[in-house]
Amino acid sequence: MKTVLLTGFEPFNKEPINPAWESVRALDGWSGSGFTVVARQLPCVFGAAIDTMRAALDELKPSLVIAIGQAGGRVDLSVERIAINIDDAPIEDNRQQQLVDQPIVAGGPAAYFSTLPIKAIVQALRAAGLPASVSQSAGTFVCNHIFYGLMHALAARADVKAGFIHIPYLPEQAARHPGAASMSLAQMVEGIRIAVRTSLAISTDISASAGATH
Amino acid sequence: MKTVLLTGFEPFNKEPINPAWESVRALDGWSGSGFTVVARQLPCVFGAAIDTMRAALDELKPSLVIAIGQAGGRVDLSVERIAINIDDAPIEDNRQQQLVDQPIVAGGPAAYFSTLPIKAIVQALRAAGLPASVSQSAGTFVCNHIFYGLMHALAARADVKAGFIHIPYLPEQAARHPGAASMSLAQMVEGIRIAVRTSLAISTDISASAGATH
Amino acid sequence: MKTVLLTGFEPFNKEPINPAWESVRALDGWSGSGFTVVARQLPCVFGAAIDTMRAALDELKPSLVIAIGQAGGRVDLSVERIAINIDDAPIEDNRQQQLVDQPIVAGGPAAYFSTLPIKAIVQALRAAGLPASVSQSAGTFVCNHIFYGLMHALAARADVKAGFIHIPYLPEQAARHPGAASMSLAQMVEGIRIAVRTSLAISTDISASAGATH
Amino acid sequence: MKTVLLTGFEPFNKEPINPAWESVRALDGWSGSGFTVVARQLPCVFGAAIDTMRAALDELKPSLVIAIGQAGGRVDLSVERIAINIDDAPIEDNRQQQLVDQPIVAGGPAAYFSTLPIKAIVQALRAAGLPASVSQSAGTFVCNHIFYGLMHALAARADVKAGFIHIPYLPEQAARHPGAASMSLAQMVEGIRIAVRTSLAISTDISASAGATH
Repeated sequence: MKTVLLTGFEPFNKEPINPAWESVRALDGWSGSGFTVVARQLPCVFGAAIDTMRAALDELKPSLVIAIGQAGGRVDLSVERIAINIDDAPIEDNRQQQLVDQPIVAGGPAAYFSTLPIKAIVQALRAAGLPASVSQSAGTFVCNHIFYGLMHALAARADVKAGFIHIPYLPEQAARHPGAASMSLAQMVEGIRIAVRTSLAISTDISASAGATH
Repeated sequence: MKTVLLTGFEPFNKEPINPAWESVRALDGWSGSGFTVVARQLPCVFGAAIDTMRAALDELKPSLVIAIGQAGGRVDLSVERIAINIDDAPIEDNRQQQLVDQPIVAGGPAAYFSTLPIKAIVQALRAAGLPASVSQSAGTFVCNHIFYGLMHALAARADVKAGFIHIPYLPEQAARHPGAASMSLAQMVEGIRIAVRTSLAISTDISASAGATH
Repeated sequence: MKTVLLTGFEPFNKEPINPAWESVRALDGWSGSGFTVVARQLPCVFGAAIDTMRAALDELKPSLVIAIGQAGGRVDLSVERIAINIDDAPIEDNRQQQLVDQPIVAGGPAAYFSTLPIKAIVQALRAAGLPASVSQSAGTFVCNHIFYGLMHALAARADVKAGFIHIPYLPEQAARHPGAASMSLAQMVEGIRIAVRTSLAISTDISASAGATH
Repeated sequence: MKTVLLTGFEPFNKEPINPAWESVRALDGWSGSGFTVVARQLPCVFGAAIDTMRAALDELKPSLVIAIGQAGGRVDLSVERIAINIDDAPIEDNRQQQLVDQPIVAGGPAAYFSTLPIKAIVQALRAAGLPASVSQSAGTFVCNHIFYGLMHALAARADVKAGFIHIPYLPEQAARHPGAASMSLAQMVEGIRIAVRTSLAISTDISASAGATH
C-alpha cells in the first residue's frame, strides 16, 4: 500500500481560509487501488513549513507528495514546473518574517524540477473539464519555499515523485477581492484527485508543449 | 402571481455550450412566494434575438426580466449598468452577420440604464460568497443588443424591471481556453436566484460606490 | 480660421503630474492650415470641470473639442465611444467629493456618442505606429463627467465635433506603479496631433469593426 | 578598458523588427570611463543562438554581458532573476524548430541565477523614471535558452557578470497588437545604459524586496 502525502497551508495574508488546506483535508483518508492519502497542514512560515514537511516525510514515507498552495488571482489549477533556491517575500509570513534574497538551502542547487508528470496532469485535468496549465514560476514566497524544500529533501530519492500545484481563490474569497478569479472547492478537490491518479499511473511524462515565450 | 422572465442565449462563437442558457433553464419553473420563473432561449442573432424577446414579453407579461449572457474571460457575475444604441460586432453572429456601427433602434435614445437594483444585487451576491461586480459596458455585440432591445421594449413600462447580467465561462469551457477564468454552473444558478430575489424585494437601489475611474 | 480646443485635467489621485495636461499644453498655439489650437486645463472636480469647459466654449467658440484624460493602467490611446449620464466615483475628486449614482445632468439623455470620427482616428494612429483602440466606456469618474458635460453643451451644435481620448501613464508615473503600462509624452503629443488632423479632415467616419463581444 | 557585450535577437514570430536588436545596436561603440560596448545580433534559433554567443565571448572576452530579448505584452523593463535548463517552445524558432522539454545542457544544473545586481538595476531604472521590475521567469523559449547558455558558459568565471533583460514591444509593434503595452526605443536604450552603468558600479546587489507570492 503506497502512501500519498498531500499538504496544504494554513490561511495567510489576512485570509480567514486557505483553499489549499480545505481541498487537501477533503481528501485525507481517501484510498484507491494500492494507495491511501494522508493530508497534512503546513504553517505559512519560512523554515517551519519545511520542518513540518520533513517530519511528515520521515513519519509517513510517502511514494508521492503533492504540495498545494493558494495563488490568489490565478484562474486555474497551475501545475508548477520548477522550484528555485531563493526566498524573496513581498509580504510577511505568519510569524512576521519577510526574508529578502536568502537562499532556502545555503549551497543547494539553484533549482529543482518537479518530478510529477506535469504535462500529463494538465492534459488529464483539461480532459475532465477543469481549467489547468503549466506554470513556469511558483513565486518566491512560502509556496516556492516549501516546493524547493520538498524537492531538496527528496533529491536522493528517485523512487518518490513530488511537486507543487497552485490553486485559485475560493469563490467566497474572490467575493472580497473584486477582479480576482476563483474556483469551487469541489473542482479543486476533483482536480487534486486527478493529479494524484495521474501521478501514480504515469511513470514517464508525455511530450506536449506547455511553455512560454517569455 | 408575478412572472419572472429569464433569457439565455444559444451557444455562439464555436462554443458547444452557453452557460447563460444552461443556468437559466435550470431555473425554469422555479417558484417562490408570489412569483414563477419562465426561462427562454434566445438566438445569438442580431434582430432575431430582439424579435424572440418581444414575443416572450407579449406572451408572458413578466414583472421582471433578467437577460443573461456569456462573457468569456470575465471573472465574476457582472451586473451591467447600461445598454448603448450601437451594434459593432467583432465577430459574426450565428447567421454570419457582422454589423458595424449600426444603431439597434434608428432614432432611439443613445442608451438605457438598467432598472434592476444593480448595487443591491452585487452586495447580495458578495454577501452570499459569490464573486460579483458592476460592469460599465456590456460590449457592442449581441449581448448589448438584446439588453438595449429589452430596455427599449419596456421604456414606457416603469412597472417592469429589467436588466442584464454577464457570466463567465463554465470550467469545461475555460479548460479549452487557457488563461480564462470560470465559474461553476451551480454558482451561476445560485447567483441568478439571488439576483431575482433581490430585484423582487428592492424597489429603490442602495447607494454604494461601484464605479470606475476610466 | 477654426479654433480647436484641447483640454487636459490637473493632476489627481495623488499623482504629481497629469499626462493629459502635459500633452495638451505642448500643443497650445499649434496652428495648421485653417486652424489654431488652444489648450485649457480643467480642475479634476465634479461640477467645476464642466463650468470651466462651458466658459471656454463660450469664450473660444471652437469648431472642434477634444478632451484628454489620464487612464492609469491602460496601454494605448483610447478613443472613447460614449459618455453616460452618471457620476459614480471610486475615489474622491480634488475637492474631496465622492459622488455616487448622481446624474450629471438631471433629466438629460442617458448617453451621448462621440461626434469625432473615432474609427478613422484609431486607423490613423495605428498607421503612424501609435498603439490605439476604441474604448466602450470612459468610466464613471470625472473623465466621463466632462465628456458627458461637453457633449451635452454641444448637443444642439451639429457643426461642432467633440469627443474624449484617454491616455496611459507617463513612464515616470508607471515607474511608481509596478505593473502599469506607459507611453512617452512625445507619442501622446503626436497622437493628439493626429486626432486633431483626422477630426478636421474627415466629415463622415469610416466603417471599421472596433467593438467588443462583452 | 573593459568590454561590455550587449546582445539582441533578430526579429521572430513574424515581427518585422526586434526591439532587442534595435536597442543594443544603438549602443554599439558607446564608451564610458573604463569601458566600451560591443553589440552583437543573435539568431532566434535554438542552439545557433548559444553558438553565436559563445563565439562572441571567446572573441571579445567581456567583463559584463547583458542579453536583451523582446517580451511582447510585458509593460516594463523586466530584469530576469533566473534561467532554467529547459526548452519548451510554444512557437517555432526561426528555423522551424519547436523543442519540447529538452534540456538546454544535458546534465547541466537545473538553473542559474543572474549575476547582475538585479535589485540595484531596477531601483536605478525607477529612479530615472523608467518602468522596471524583477521577473521570476524568462519563459522557456529562445530568450531563456540564451540566458541559460550564457550563464553556463560563464559558470566558472566569477569575474564576469552576466544576465538578461526582457523589454516590451516598440509602439509600432503594439499598434499591430491591440491590447499590448509598449515602450519607446529611446527609453529602452536609456534603460540599457543605466543597467550597464549600474552593473559596472555595483559589486554586491542591494537588499530590496522584489518577489512574488506566486
